[in-house]
Amino acid sequence: MQLLKEAIETKGRVIDDKIIKIDSFLNHQVDVELVSAMADDLYEHYKDAGITKIITLETSGIAPAFATALKMNVPFVFIKKAMPSTMMNPVTTKVFSFTKNKVYEVCMERDFVSENDKVLFIDDFLANGEAFKACETLIKACGAELKGVGIVVEKAFQNGHKYIVDKGYDLYCLASIDTIKDGKIIWAD
Amino acid sequence: MQLLKEAIETKGRVIDDKIIKIDSFLNHQVDVELVSAMADDLYEHYKDAGITKIITLETSGIAPAFATALKMNVPFVFIKKAMPSTMMNPVTTKVFSFTKNKVYEVCMERDFVSENDKVLFIDDFLANGEAFKACETLIKACGAELKGVGIVVEKAFQNGHKYIVDKGYDLYCLASIDTIKDGKIIWAD
Repeated sequence: MQLLKEAIETKGRVIDDKIIKIDSFLNHQVDVELVSAMADDLYEHYKDAGITKIITLETSGIAPAFATALKMNVPFVFIKKAMPSTMMNPVTTKVFSFTKNKVYEVCMERDFVSENDKVLFIDDFLANGEAFKACETLIKACGAELKGVGIVVEKAFQNGHKYIVDKGYDLYCLASIDTIKDGKIIWAD
Repeated sequence: MQLLKEAIETKGRVIDDKIIKIDSFLNHQVDVELVSAMADDLYEHYKDAGITKIITLETSGIAPAFATALKMNVPFVFIKKAMPSTMMNPVTTKVFSFTKNKVYEVCMERDFVSENDKVLFIDDFLANGEAFKACETLIKACGAELKGVGIVVEKAFQNGHKYIVDKGYDLYCLASIDTIKDGKIIWAD
């Protein structure tokens, strides 16, 4: 998605060979027009997949998940990083965070996802796929079918891409980074 | 907002005299059509206030903030509950959470809000106003003007309402609860 790549190049910041910062338009401040354009692109790719529910993991996936859910006219669910005391019937699993070097638990209300649901998972970043694997576990625990994985920015040089493609899921990334070297982003396509 | 009140009455759950649970359409699963209708209502109220930026606190305010920002065609910023290591120029303050009975820190990148900004604060719930006060502190620290406070559900029997109105802010709540008694919600209007 050309508009997104330009935003990353002009408004993003390369921190090191693994980390880019896009908090001026997606992860902290949100450019709603750009996120709507992302949703148009995701909608176009998945519109015939029979999606009935979008799932993301809080927090930064919520904006693109909302915008895409709006185009598809389906509800979305954000998986939570802390269990509310009022959750009735939770499914839970653990996630290893490379960034924070620790394991944390995520949870979702089982009643919001059924075995009849065809799920599109959406997230802001795909790196090693640890967050994705946890969400995949929760979606499976509810008996739903995972029909697609829509990602805003993937770092194709890490392990998440291969894991998802090897499992046969329809992975669609709006911007795919092949390498980050000497402060420069080399796109995969 | 009648549609929202009906959703609360039919899909919400009264937990006790202070807590209602609306996680089937706002706080965990999100009904995007209903949230869009909320945004229409918020837009109608604040459309002449010259808003340049919407601010919310992660996580459950993000969906209504996004939808309203989309109608107003302005960016929004979600204040964070954990400081990312990559934040360049943070403003921070502390929040006391009655629900969790503990103090935590929230932060925002100073560069995303300027003294020229006219800010609309949006959140899902207003109870004692502790989260609001923290956001007010951060908005002031950036020198911006707080022009309005848009809330999805307020519990008017707690202290937040009075705090905000006494300060002269334009508070607009889509649903206002006067009392919760014996499992029933009494609306304030």
